[in-house]
Amino acid sequence: MQGPKERKLQRTTWVVFSDRGYQMANMNDVSRLAGVSRGTVSNYINGLKVRPAAQERIENAIKKLNYVPNAAARTLKTNRSSYVVLIIPRVDTPFFSELSYCMQQVLKENGYKMILCNSNSRPQEEFEYIQMAKTQKVAGIITMSYADIRELVPPDIPLVALENKVADFFPLITSDNYHGGSLAASKLYSLGARKLLFISKAPVKDVSQIREQGFRDYCEDNKIEHDRFVAQNKANFVDDFRYFIESEVTDKKFKYDGVFSDSDEYVSDFWYLLQQRKIAVPEEVQLIGFDGARVYPRQQVVVSSIKQPVTEITRQAFKSLQQQLIGKNNTQNEMYEPLVLPVSFIQGQTTKQAES
Amino acid sequence: MQGPKERKLQRTTWVVFSDRGYQMANMNDVSRLAGVSRGTVSNYINGLKVRPAAQERIENAIKKLNYVPNAAARTLKTNRSSYVVLIIPRVDTPFFSELSYCMQQVLKENGYKMILCNSNSRPQEEFEYIQMAKTQKVAGIITMSYADIRELVPPDIPLVALENKVADFFPLITSDNYHGGSLAASKLYSLGARKLLFISKAPVKDVSQIREQGFRDYCEDNKIEHDRFVAQNKANFVDDFRYFIESEVTDKKFKYDGVFSDSDEYVSDFWYLLQQRKIAVPEEVQLIGFDGARVYPRQQVVVSSIKQPVTEITRQAFKSLQQQLIGKNNTQNEMYEPLVLPVSFIQGQTTKQAES
Repeated sequence: MQGPKERKLQRTTWVVFSDRGYQMANMNDVSRLAGVSRGTVSNYINGLKVRPAAQERIENAIKKLNYVPNAAARTLKTNRSSYVVLIIPRVDTPFFSELSYCMQQVLKENGYKMILCNSNSRPQEEFEYIQMAKTQKVAGIITMSYADIRELVPPDIPLVALENKVADFFPLITSDNYHGGSLAASKLYSLGARKLLFISKAPVKDVSQIREQGFRDYCEDNKIEHDRFVAQNKANFVDDFRYFIESEVTDKKFKYDGVFSDSDEYVSDFWYLLQQRKIAVPEEVQLIGFDGARVYPRQQVVVSSIKQPVTEITRQAFKSLQQQLIGKNNTQNEMYEPLVLPVSFIQGQTTKQAES
Repeated sequence: MQGPKERKLQRTTWVVFSDRGYQMANMNDVSRLAGVSRGTVSNYINGLKVRPAAQERIENAIKKLNYVPNAAARTLKTNRSSYVVLIIPRVDTPFFSELSYCMQQVLKENGYKMILCNSNSRPQEEFEYIQMAKTQKVAGIITMSYADIRELVPPDIPLVALENKVADFFPLITSDNYHGGSLAASKLYSLGARKLLFISKAPVKDVSQIREQGFRDYCEDNKIEHDRFVAQNKANFVDDFRYFIESEVTDKKFKYDGVFSDSDEYVSDFWYLLQQRKIAVPEEVQLIGFDGARVYPRQQVVVSSIKQPVTEITRQAFKSLQQQLIGKNNTQNEMYEPLVLPVSFIQGQTTKQAES
């Protein structure tokens, strides 16, 4: 007798390569043609064991009828679809696109489909997606939220928070942002930088704040000179960076020789502005960003960075979702400690090669 | 009396801001509490007109019960969900992430949800997603396919092809790839380049081939010296580019002064290799890529490029899907001409400023 996995593979093959029409047969048709009860057909469809004789008749009936199991009917029955909602600010940046790619691959391996939701960092859009998740009876929600969605999520929908905590009763998966900041400071120092600068865009809060804190604490503990510049012009922070560089250049030399930012984006803008001012990177100024996502999957690293372990984040997020799915009725009774995953330094073109 | 739109807004509000528990009421509960027939409740839910008195009682019942309409039940009834499947090679590149972002935003504005599917350019994965789309009774499929999926798509699922034709009976939305190639050649020439080169990675087929053809035809029509280099080492094409550059450098000068590629990715790699060889871009060699997607949404353009009109592509794709949804039973009787959208040149750091 075949195991459930083999049967599943066969089912896919039948439908994909069937040369029959597409009139939709239902489970009753299969039951009638196979001469077995509807319950037996249902067991078969759901991967449970059925008698070998019944199995063969069901398989033949499915083939003849070109029957495709109906996901909507199954959702009604099990009260849960195989969709997982991923809520992120927006997919069109290197880090979030890499995260979306890896998350979809992990979900697919496990038989789930991913509904991609761009919130544009707007609370109202996050609320709408959560509401949609309820209506659609999704299997779970994985979210990088900035709004307070705690009250909106019903206890029977598993949720995993990425980066920002939603509530103590939902698991949180995050990179070690604090260590990332201190690692950047220690790298810049060990590569010879002596006047360090943290750059960002207002408001510096959530993980950005933690990253800066790690950076500052390392500098203070080790008596390293350090400063900060935060662009206040949110819509056009590159202009703020430009004015700042102008104001800190004397005799063609920039006042700082090591720059850290909580984002690769700011580092690449800053790098470009320094280049325009003919200040050599990494010879005169070294830069380290955060995220370490590549622009193209196989491209060399461009900006030296503190890399978030994206693959591990997505694997842990799925694992945590799965654990809630198994014991899903008492999720909100459990309290979760954040799962903090290690970051690492990756060498790009904006820092000097370490001497070996 | 309120129109359907107002009612819908109210329904959303009730659920989002309800402070009651989340036990799931169904349509029968609403019918019982409101003292109206199940059919009337169903009409109300589906936006049809009901008597004002009945409407008020239904609305009160829905509020009291914190009833959320069940999407799975509606799908069973209407035989179509509000999901749209987007199949792309992989989301973690600037062009595909921008496309995914814009597509999701257009779909969301129109009440659809997007299932993101990365095919990794593998036919088998495309087949699996099409099969999933059938099982899930999705509203439609938008696909950038490289495999022959024609036979797999049932006539009742609307499909829109992006970039590559699936079949004459499915609409195709594409950028003007041919003109993009000739535009690149004409730009390079007008900016002073006289020895042009096309670079790519094997195999040069589909839209890459069309882009090269446009480039070559322009050169030949205008008697411009031109050549091509295609990396054969698929896994590590950057090494091939490096060897090629080595072989074509004499006395610190690169043999070509204008380079076009069918991809921004190859251009940015080539640029990096020229920099390492101390060959100045754009002073000695000018480079133009294809796609023109930004790495970060608000970042300055890095690589000069032929820009695909992503927003327009996604708007047209949705429009075309919607037209099929309206007249969905006879889609495969219609023959479609490709819809070719105009491209444009965008100035980045890899070409000289045009003299005004």
